[in-house]
Amino acid sequence: MNSDLEPFFNPSTVAVVGASARKTSVGGVIFRNFLKPAFKGTAYPINPRTADVLGIPSFERVSAVPDPIDLTVIAVPAGIVPHIMRDCEEKGVKAVIIISGGFKETGPEGAYLEQQVIDIAKRSGIRVIGPNCVGIYDTNTGVDTTFLPASRMGRPGKGYISFISQSGAFAAAILDMNALSGLGVSRVISFGNKADVNEIDLIQYLGQDPETHVIVEYLEGLSPSTGTSYLQSAKLVTQEKPIIVVKAGRTQRGSAAAASHTGALAGDARLYDFAFHQAGIIIANDFEDGFEMAKALATQPTSDGNRILIVTDAGGAGVMTVDACEELGLSVPETPKDKKQILREAFPGYCSVHNPIDLTGDTDAERYQIALDVLLGIDHFDAAIAVVMMQIPLLDLDIVDRLVAIVRKYNKPLVACTAGGRFTMKGARLLEEAGIPALPTPARAAKAIWALVKYGEIKHKAGTMQQ
Amino acid sequence: MNSDLEPFFNPSTVAVVGASARKTSVGGVIFRNFLKPAFKGTAYPINPRTADVLGIPSFERVSAVPDPIDLTVIAVPAGIVPHIMRDCEEKGVKAVIIISGGFKETGPEGAYLEQQVIDIAKRSGIRVIGPNCVGIYDTNTGVDTTFLPASRMGRPGKGYISFISQSGAFAAAILDMNALSGLGVSRVISFGNKADVNEIDLIQYLGQDPETHVIVEYLEGLSPSTGTSYLQSAKLVTQEKPIIVVKAGRTQRGSAAAASHTGALAGDARLYDFAFHQAGIIIANDFEDGFEMAKALATQPTSDGNRILIVTDAGGAGVMTVDACEELGLSVPETPKDKKQILREAFPGYCSVHNPIDLTGDTDAERYQIALDVLLGIDHFDAAIAVVMMQIPLLDLDIVDRLVAIVRKYNKPLVACTAGGRFTMKGARLLEEAGIPALPTPARAAKAIWALVKYGEIKHKAGTMQQ
Repeated sequence: MNSDLEPFFNPSTVAVVGASARKTSVGGVIFRNFLKPAFKGTAYPINPRTADVLGIPSFERVSAVPDPIDLTVIAVPAGIVPHIMRDCEEKGVKAVIIISGGFKETGPEGAYLEQQVIDIAKRSGIRVIGPNCVGIYDTNTGVDTTFLPASRMGRPGKGYISFISQSGAFAAAILDMNALSGLGVSRVISFGNKADVNEIDLIQYLGQDPETHVIVEYLEGLSPSTGTSYLQSAKLVTQEKPIIVVKAGRTQRGSAAAASHTGALAGDARLYDFAFHQAGIIIANDFEDGFEMAKALATQPTSDGNRILIVTDAGGAGVMTVDACEELGLSVPETPKDKKQILREAFPGYCSVHNPIDLTGDTDAERYQIALDVLLGIDHFDAAIAVVMMQIPLLDLDIVDRLVAIVRKYNKPLVACTAGGRFTMKGARLLEEAGIPALPTPARAAKAIWALVKYGEIKHKAGTMQQ
Repeated sequence: MNSDLEPFFNPSTVAVVGASARKTSVGGVIFRNFLKPAFKGTAYPINPRTADVLGIPSFERVSAVPDPIDLTVIAVPAGIVPHIMRDCEEKGVKAVIIISGGFKETGPEGAYLEQQVIDIAKRSGIRVIGPNCVGIYDTNTGVDTTFLPASRMGRPGKGYISFISQSGAFAAAILDMNALSGLGVSRVISFGNKADVNEIDLIQYLGQDPETHVIVEYLEGLSPSTGTSYLQSAKLVTQEKPIIVVKAGRTQRGSAAAASHTGALAGDARLYDFAFHQAGIIIANDFEDGFEMAKALATQPTSDGNRILIVTDAGGAGVMTVDACEELGLSVPETPKDKKQILREAFPGYCSVHNPIDLTGDTDAERYQIALDVLLGIDHFDAAIAVVMMQIPLLDLDIVDRLVAIVRKYNKPLVACTAGGRFTMKGARLLEEAGIPALPTPARAAKAIWALVKYGEIKHKAGTMQQ
């Protein structure tokens, strides 16, 4: 990819300033990350107080490394960071991630240091992520500047969802959650004080990135100077891939809290809603539905319409799924008469062939396949929610293969809703590994389907306007 | 307890009609449940086709048992159930649970059978739960008529939340979920077609039950003949303990689906909202927030007001928690000036002493204790949300004891918000075992605190009206 952000994500050579053998030091953890087999480049420890780090010769400063350096990661106190930036300038380093805190966020002295960093970056052309950030976690290239110990924060595997966050704590929590749930990620970026690289640079980069299929962003506010540019960039990106924004500071008090947290102008929620809508951005309520929508968008085809078929083995959950769909503006049309007749002949008399199709508690996986096969192919339903309560004894895990076959056959989106304990968790994991999102409540399943409908509309609108 | 429902929950003698040695038969599973040590009474197998079941002498019919029978559980085909009911009448049985399906829900023939059951129950005074139900799961007495195999449905331990559900599938899913999450239950009742015992009987019984502190109910609709009586009963119960209703059929299409599912008149959602509000019932969006609110109400003191203190180690999550509180009508007042000064002296300069108090990513558990100790004691905050992202390295699990100590000291409610992977799950489990609900998102934590505020208001209103 032709971008000056490329050295952040795909460096051949990395210098870690503050690298040490101590497992508890930030620089120590980060340097170790670059020694893992996932990272294919070369990492150089920069530490004037030692001859080597873990047996690898150490250099006094970045400019002392004989080879060219693509990326420098800085994890030393704020006071000496401008000095290191000047050294990077001398060396011709392309990109710098400043993990260290102690800048703008701590007061005027820190702001002065940060301005020095900005000045050097501007004159030298060095791109800077941070300061005061967790940096990058990239499952494609093995770049990992997250410094939290593995005992506290799990590292997720490869996926196609990328996450951008000003908040480092959020990035860490999201990585940790996804590691446990098995949802992979592509590139996760915490950009902290955004002295240089900001959300516009990042959505432009990820917009062109073939390893990113969905972008999720945690955002507190846009600044007056960059807001319009952000929305214009987003509008271009959302024609190609979805952007889901988790917007904090929606309320008056929340907006004040955001100002105190990152200095963000969280502003009027309705203005943001309008602007995001214009830019084709999907708005999440929080990171939970944000990532659940992203999971659906990363695994399922988008929907050509909002007509939802619901198939269930639990009548009550079927009713709640109808409610949830209707409340999101989705349509739950009645089953066509001729198809009802076919289903009546296929199923016992106590099954309901109205939408939601109620297969009842003695169903097996085959009834799901029959109902979906009869109905999802016709131009009457655009997408389906399969409510699969796995406590019932005749339903076996071949439900997974049968649902996958239906999605393949009709290329219409399907998500599952399944709630329960150990057996259900096993079934849900199998569904997700097969690419079918499994959500634990009707409302969350409906929201995932809604995202597939919504992004279908966004793409359709973008297509119409290009014509 | 002096109630004609008592034999359902606390029988000394139980006859299981359809008991067999087969592990896959419904009667076989249920009879085995009554042989577990948790059940202290005596269980008699009723099966004319065998001399004994698992070595226990079997009887041809209920009336052949020499001892009096408190409870009969019926798990044989619908066609012979009226015959068994007549036998129970002859024997003087007090209570019958009819697990079998094949009644009203299958058409006119089944409805005729059900009417016979109702007629016998009325003339004899036998109370009947079901037919077409899962029956009772009671952690106090060991009564367990759930027939789903342990490999599919986990059995939760003792707790103080009771759950009433017309839907058997929901009851099973809830039991299974709670078994995994560690949230105990008291009495869970699936009452199916409610030929006799209905939700009014059950909330009256649970309202007087010392082992039930919170009632959760899944409801599709109230019938015109019993709706007013239900609301009057609920109004009395909610003066003593909370009732949380998960109401399905809120939308027009959902209401139609409910009519098809249980014949419920789901009706106008606003009418229900109004009526439930008058009766002091708390309305849940779904079973997820329903049980999370119940967990908070079962473990934490109710709140005397709606002024919420938020303490966080992650600024972004703090902002989102403010949003979530404000959107639920809770107040997030600014920290009083004099207390700000105290906190400024206690914490590093980069911490924020505004509400939400941001302890930042290098906090330990002690900062939480200090902030809560300084602020939760004053008549300025009624309740607290502690956002505890556990990825950060200096925060240890002594946070649990410190939060517990604060709740004890001030008797004000507190819930935690914590999101992450393995370590977080361990911490969340410890918090919940210590009686502090740990919710995975700001919105869900705010909803749990909202329930404590709401029930405080309901009790206050009831108290005022009694004066």
